[in-house]
Amino acid sequence: MSSAASFRVEKDLLGTLEVPADAYYGIQTLRAANNFHLSGVPLSHYPKLVVGLAMVKQAAADANRELGHLSDAKHAAISAACGRLIKGDYHEQFVVDMIQGGAGTSTNMNANEVIANIALEAMGHQKGEYQYLHPNNDVNMAQSTNDAYPTAIRLGLLLGHDALLASLDSLIQAFAAKGKEFDHVLKMGRTQLQDAVPMTLGQEFRAFATTMTEDLNRLRSLAPELLTEINLGGTAIGTGINADPGYQMLAVQRLATISGQPLVPAADLIEATSDMGAFVLFSGMLKRTAVKLSKICNDLRLLSSGPRTGINEINLPARQPGSSIMPGKVNPVIPEAVNQVAFAIMGNDLALTVAAEGGQLQLNVMEPLIAYKIFDSIRLLQRAMDMLREHCIVGITANEQRCRELVEHSIGLVTALNPYIGYENATRIARVALETGRGVLELVREEKLLDEEMLNDILRPENMIAPRLVPLKA
Amino acid sequence: MSSAASFRVEKDLLGTLEVPADAYYGIQTLRAANNFHLSGVPLSHYPKLVVGLAMVKQAAADANRELGHLSDAKHAAISAACGRLIKGDYHEQFVVDMIQGGAGTSTNMNANEVIANIALEAMGHQKGEYQYLHPNNDVNMAQSTNDAYPTAIRLGLLLGHDALLASLDSLIQAFAAKGKEFDHVLKMGRTQLQDAVPMTLGQEFRAFATTMTEDLNRLRSLAPELLTEINLGGTAIGTGINADPGYQMLAVQRLATISGQPLVPAADLIEATSDMGAFVLFSGMLKRTAVKLSKICNDLRLLSSGPRTGINEINLPARQPGSSIMPGKVNPVIPEAVNQVAFAIMGNDLALTVAAEGGQLQLNVMEPLIAYKIFDSIRLLQRAMDMLREHCIVGITANEQRCRELVEHSIGLVTALNPYIGYENATRIARVALETGRGVLELVREEKLLDEEMLNDILRPENMIAPRLVPLKA
Amino acid sequence: MSSAASFRVEKDLLGTLEVPADAYYGIQTLRAANNFHLSGVPLSHYPKLVVGLAMVKQAAADANRELGHLSDAKHAAISAACGRLIKGDYHEQFVVDMIQGGAGTSTNMNANEVIANIALEAMGHQKGEYQYLHPNNDVNMAQSTNDAYPTAIRLGLLLGHDALLASLDSLIQAFAAKGKEFDHVLKMGRTQLQDAVPMTLGQEFRAFATTMTEDLNRLRSLAPELLTEINLGGTAIGTGINADPGYQMLAVQRLATISGQPLVPAADLIEATSDMGAFVLFSGMLKRTAVKLSKICNDLRLLSSGPRTGINEINLPARQPGSSIMPGKVNPVIPEAVNQVAFAIMGNDLALTVAAEGGQLQLNVMEPLIAYKIFDSIRLLQRAMDMLREHCIVGITANEQRCRELVEHSIGLVTALNPYIGYENATRIARVALETGRGVLELVREEKLLDEEMLNDILRPENMIAPRLVPLKA
Amino acid sequence: MSSAASFRVEKDLLGTLEVPADAYYGIQTLRAANNFHLSGVPLSHYPKLVVGLAMVKQAAADANRELGHLSDAKHAAISAACGRLIKGDYHEQFVVDMIQGGAGTSTNMNANEVIANIALEAMGHQKGEYQYLHPNNDVNMAQSTNDAYPTAIRLGLLLGHDALLASLDSLIQAFAAKGKEFDHVLKMGRTQLQDAVPMTLGQEFRAFATTMTEDLNRLRSLAPELLTEINLGGTAIGTGINADPGYQMLAVQRLATISGQPLVPAADLIEATSDMGAFVLFSGMLKRTAVKLSKICNDLRLLSSGPRTGINEINLPARQPGSSIMPGKVNPVIPEAVNQVAFAIMGNDLALTVAAEGGQLQLNVMEPLIAYKIFDSIRLLQRAMDMLREHCIVGITANEQRCRELVEHSIGLVTALNPYIGYENATRIARVALETGRGVLELVREEKLLDEEMLNDILRPENMIAPRLVPLKA
Repeated sequence: MSSAASFRVEKDLLGTLEVPADAYYGIQTLRAANNFHLSGVPLSHYPKLVVGLAMVKQAAADANRELGHLSDAKHAAISAACGRLIKGDYHEQFVVDMIQGGAGTSTNMNANEVIANIALEAMGHQKGEYQYLHPNNDVNMAQSTNDAYPTAIRLGLLLGHDALLASLDSLIQAFAAKGKEFDHVLKMGRTQLQDAVPMTLGQEFRAFATTMTEDLNRLRSLAPELLTEINLGGTAIGTGINADPGYQMLAVQRLATISGQPLVPAADLIEATSDMGAFVLFSGMLKRTAVKLSKICNDLRLLSSGPRTGINEINLPARQPGSSIMPGKVNPVIPEAVNQVAFAIMGNDLALTVAAEGGQLQLNVMEPLIAYKIFDSIRLLQRAMDMLREHCIVGITANEQRCRELVEHSIGLVTALNPYIGYENATRIARVALETGRGVLELVREEKLLDEEMLNDILRPENMIAPRLVPLKA
Repeated sequence: MSSAASFRVEKDLLGTLEVPADAYYGIQTLRAANNFHLSGVPLSHYPKLVVGLAMVKQAAADANRELGHLSDAKHAAISAACGRLIKGDYHEQFVVDMIQGGAGTSTNMNANEVIANIALEAMGHQKGEYQYLHPNNDVNMAQSTNDAYPTAIRLGLLLGHDALLASLDSLIQAFAAKGKEFDHVLKMGRTQLQDAVPMTLGQEFRAFATTMTEDLNRLRSLAPELLTEINLGGTAIGTGINADPGYQMLAVQRLATISGQPLVPAADLIEATSDMGAFVLFSGMLKRTAVKLSKICNDLRLLSSGPRTGINEINLPARQPGSSIMPGKVNPVIPEAVNQVAFAIMGNDLALTVAAEGGQLQLNVMEPLIAYKIFDSIRLLQRAMDMLREHCIVGITANEQRCRELVEHSIGLVTALNPYIGYENATRIARVALETGRGVLELVREEKLLDEEMLNDILRPENMIAPRLVPLKA
Repeated sequence: MSSAASFRVEKDLLGTLEVPADAYYGIQTLRAANNFHLSGVPLSHYPKLVVGLAMVKQAAADANRELGHLSDAKHAAISAACGRLIKGDYHEQFVVDMIQGGAGTSTNMNANEVIANIALEAMGHQKGEYQYLHPNNDVNMAQSTNDAYPTAIRLGLLLGHDALLASLDSLIQAFAAKGKEFDHVLKMGRTQLQDAVPMTLGQEFRAFATTMTEDLNRLRSLAPELLTEINLGGTAIGTGINADPGYQMLAVQRLATISGQPLVPAADLIEATSDMGAFVLFSGMLKRTAVKLSKICNDLRLLSSGPRTGINEINLPARQPGSSIMPGKVNPVIPEAVNQVAFAIMGNDLALTVAAEGGQLQLNVMEPLIAYKIFDSIRLLQRAMDMLREHCIVGITANEQRCRELVEHSIGLVTALNPYIGYENATRIARVALETGRGVLELVREEKLLDEEMLNDILRPENMIAPRLVPLKA
Repeated sequence: MSSAASFRVEKDLLGTLEVPADAYYGIQTLRAANNFHLSGVPLSHYPKLVVGLAMVKQAAADANRELGHLSDAKHAAISAACGRLIKGDYHEQFVVDMIQGGAGTSTNMNANEVIANIALEAMGHQKGEYQYLHPNNDVNMAQSTNDAYPTAIRLGLLLGHDALLASLDSLIQAFAAKGKEFDHVLKMGRTQLQDAVPMTLGQEFRAFATTMTEDLNRLRSLAPELLTEINLGGTAIGTGINADPGYQMLAVQRLATISGQPLVPAADLIEATSDMGAFVLFSGMLKRTAVKLSKICNDLRLLSSGPRTGINEINLPARQPGSSIMPGKVNPVIPEAVNQVAFAIMGNDLALTVAAEGGQLQLNVMEPLIAYKIFDSIRLLQRAMDMLREHCIVGITANEQRCRELVEHSIGLVTALNPYIGYENATRIARVALETGRGVLELVREEKLLDEEMLNDILRPENMIAPRLVPLKA
């Protein structure tokens, strides 16, 4: 091949192809890129997956060298190449579509080829001169896609997990700060969109913090429980065929060290090769977090509805003009976007679940879709949480006066009087208030059902928002 | 078998079983009942399916007699038995679980056995004396489960379709009547839960009628388009093996006559045997109707929210006390139940879709689940629409005064002024109104942006709820 | 009311109704039964939910007595009534539809009314004489639907959990036993439905046991993690309004004692009142188990396919004649039914998820659907696992000879030779074998690539199904 | 602003921002780009949506000029700008994320701003000099996002529809050609993965063509039925506020002419503004097509399974080496990728459905997600169909000898003998064949149940794959 050539010719089981001269990927990657023109989302879109692949290749090379199967020179070149990928270089060489047939073989070969060619250049060879270092025989030594690929997915998820938790934690802090800020704002609670009983706006926001904290704790514990058991060393179907008996343990230990993750070998490699249960449950957990966020955003949109014909208890920060036709309109665009992210994550969970069910016999061939959808859900979730906190929660203000007026005007106050005037009186007062438009307190006073001192005591905010001793006896 | 025996012994390919003496079903039904103890929902739960099966058996018997394969005596006995099932008798004999393996064979055999035994008694024989009339050889003659069962499902859906349309039509009439009743009630329209521009409550309810009318028309046309092409005559896999060449046409014609449905033979019987596309799309349509109903019910709950701390533009009729602790609380329980029905139908659609995808080669073995879920969705939908109309829509009243106050108080009015005072003025007025709590009209008057006559003209309700010529020129 | 009357008249906020004289439920239950004619599945369908409700009522009564709010006589009568429900009596009185509006109020009132009337009779009064013991004032004392109902759901799930685990455990034992029984049966593993490398049938079944054991462990730990934190004592919206300050702790402790479950009070009662996260994740876990079962059943159907034109490595026990037209056909009806159960559970999870998202402000009004779908999924799952074990797994036999022939005939053997003859030779041999129909071993021998001793060593079954030291050096 | 400046300052309701000097979009687009950093998929990803927007703006400008509201000069400049977008220029200026809050306002403003700035330059002004031509007052004249945006979505879907149909049609032709090519290949049909009765491989592929033709016809008719009714002219909520009474009809007519699509005005603009039913059903139809494709691909993978340990009736063309460890392995990667596309489309349909349910009152604010998911499904579907045809179907070959051997060896042959030897004999023969491994014909001959001539006649292929007159009489 002349130096001016714009391509090099590579060869595989099926024949030859012209690979662009400057491509670090090789023929098998090229075949996959030609075959799968689907989502338009390449592997490089998810950097943690690429880094996970590189770490797996590094660990395998370390183990193979230690077992005497890989020369020091090859090992050094492979290691350097993996290091570059881990640093974030060459990611644009991962060109295969996230949706692909072949159970991830194309992803694995993309990694094998890119690493081989980076290494070859470092060794002073040309890209494609695989006689000096081979994508399959050397980079992929003792591995199969069927163990390397799912291991890389799990690792990629673990590597990105702290950032997800950090975004969630920041959001929780923002909710909690508002909970504190609004602690003195008395307002009506609502059940079934109907007036219920008093509470504080602080309690409402603190509940958002509480519910997301439950998810923070759950996500924090679930990731290691679900994702640290890896099937590296199982090779093709989990029997470890063609792998050195010492390989599995060494490779897993190396990978744990390289990644800093508490990885352990799967006890049953046959099972671990085809099992997608960890992804199904992890996605189910992401879906739960998304559902909670969506519920919170529905609440924010309700509470800020109006300004004149809605609830209008809080103000969301204005982020952009709300209408191309209605002057002055500002809409709750940030919560609306979070809702849509949540729906997208629900859709991802479904696609992933059906893919998990579609596995057959010793392998789940739908794994690329599973990887795609779970990485996508995580990214959407993290970005949505950052957006929600930064562009919405921290800027929320309360319409304190409006909140208090709604309480005082409310029929739901009668619930607080219930233990003192009895259920039948309370029900009657409520009905009269509703029919006449008059106030509950006004009616109670008119009927002298309670004296003024007692009324004031009952209706003191701090008395209404927590349990208190009531005078009724059985 | 003595007359006092509580069971009779029947025999099949796998051996013998004791069948309860008074059961009209036989050994194969009994095996299925023993095998599938799952949903707890028996076939008899969906009478139209049972009737559909009976009509298929009747049509097959007619065709077989005409072709000379079935004696007049047997035909007469089978016909009488089918007639009883079509009338609604003996349905309790259809005991197999709606969720079953075997691609519907158990359902088909349940029908074959019940018909055979009713017929045997009518012929003067004992139940189980199949030498005189056999469930397989006679009742099932020229059929396979694989053509008889899907045909019966399609037919069952068609037989129940008019009732579904009637429920939907009644609901539409109820919406339309409210649309007329509320035609003079001016109110604010809301987009993104924020004040938008004026409309009438009548327009709002009329839109409910319009959107459901679209579904009525769509459902009316989809059912015949999707469900009238049947694969009867295809037998096991659509090749028509073991069927007389004249059978298919005769049987389909007879079935069309018996059922009064415009049934036609499928052009490609191989395809028709395994194809579930009609059910997927029909369920998709039911899901659409459910989604629309859910959206409407969300609106009804929003519009009736309060009474004091919500929108409170309309009142839903009280159906039951709303709280075991809060006196006087009445909740929108009917729309809430409709929402849940809609979610259940979405779940049914998913289960059905995955089942449709799970078919393999010449048959979809998941057809029993498909039948179960589609019949369930239809029943839920119909009952929910009846409930919504009868217990909610017809009793809705408007809070006309409240609606008008919200309009007059609204900042959204400024949109109507926009063409007259310009976008910049309008935006500024809106902002000042929002910040000061003052009214838009008050500010416009103060700034003398429009004279009183013009203002009155612009704000006349009939001028705000439809397009009108504006004075601005480019 | 005369003794001959067939009904009694009861009264509530909305007016009066005639309640059947022998009904233990009262007017509010009757209203709900009239309102919600939807799924046709009454509360009594899920006995653990009814028992959960009874235990909650018992615990509340205990706490109220201890705090001096409920007389000993009333407490004794309520206790006796709750005891009867816990024993399983009177469940047929729980007649409200599982799909209902009102966020469970009708379910709670059904319990309150049934308990009140049982208690009234025990106290020597007539049903309906609520002046002596009132469903709201006494049975529901210090509770709201909004705390009593979700507590009862959680408790109901916990009460049924051991049975679910037991069914799963038994299924695992059955898989494990087959794993042992088939340990010597060498067969080909398959990836992507293509021949891969050898394994044993025992490994395949052991992997089923392993994967379900992971779910057993996960389910065992998830239930207490998710379901033991209860919001009892929060009353209407979690502020504990109208409850004695000492009530919450007492009631929760009593409920823990009565139920034998490690229940603890929720730290944030506002949050706990509306949070559905536990159900979303628990359902997600049930979905995962369902997906795994479905995958296993797909495998069983593939492995038993044939008998002549499929894989035919194993035989499933015949459960029923397979065809109404094809003599001798026996189908894998049990796995097929499990598949459908799995799809139904996926649908349930979706419905539940959407319902969880639909909660608003201080309550999730869609909770009845959530309860319905989660109880349904559990029941379906448990029954499907029992069916699968009893009617299928325990009776599976291996076609050992067929398994071995497929191995020997397979091209996949070449993978085992790969480390000895090199990737290029191996690829070439594979291609020639495929094109000519000849055997891999035959070709290797012909080309003298390996001597006979080496070949025998490599191909010894125990050497092919686990890692072994290979001779290749880098 | 100096000519060297890298940005210009723009101003809106909320303040000012620095817009990149070379950007044709303006401040509102920039705000949206800053707000919504979510999916990473910009509007430009779906060119038909951008073209749809441009056509809407063109039609509105035409109508506004004709009504005298827009000057000829402005109209000419807007028209030229729209023309450039329709040609495909400037699409990279559509930078807003497909997932966005604001119900599409950002998309609409992106179009308004880009068109205004292109037009301004053409008029000899600088970008941003909106005093000469304003994004809102001129480009968006008489429109709201709430009518312009859904109209553009519908139009975008219509504009891409022919290409989708063409891809589907080509795939159908490929299936049909194989159906013809394989018409003489006799093979066993399978139901429930068990041997059933004979058919031809041609029938099997023809059924694929048939089932997809049903979808072609359905898609062809559904698109105009669902998508041609547009709400242009309804402005903010469908009341047409601020639009000239003559505007709606003119604008719709112009849009129909410009686009060549048979667009008609919606009869009820209030309804049409918030109604998402068309998208739900259209997506449901796409899901159906995806499900059918997935089922077909499952079949292709089953039929090509092996080569030695599976069914192996057909060969899929090799597209890429199948394994990084197993030499010679070639996998069905193309069908596998189609399966995954189908699952992704199922997930999209779910996300879209939940979004449709989430609309409230006069607008569905989740519309951007709906647009995103439906455009994504269409693109995935079209690409998957092209891939399947080109890289798989056209290259499929049949293993004719293998097919025939399986037929002859099969027990299912006995079904063909059933009408001649009776169900009991047939069942017995089948059982003996299964138990002994002997052939059905061999046993029939041994028992002299049929003479040789009759046997040959029955078993002639053409006699087994279609109905024929049988000798049995009742």
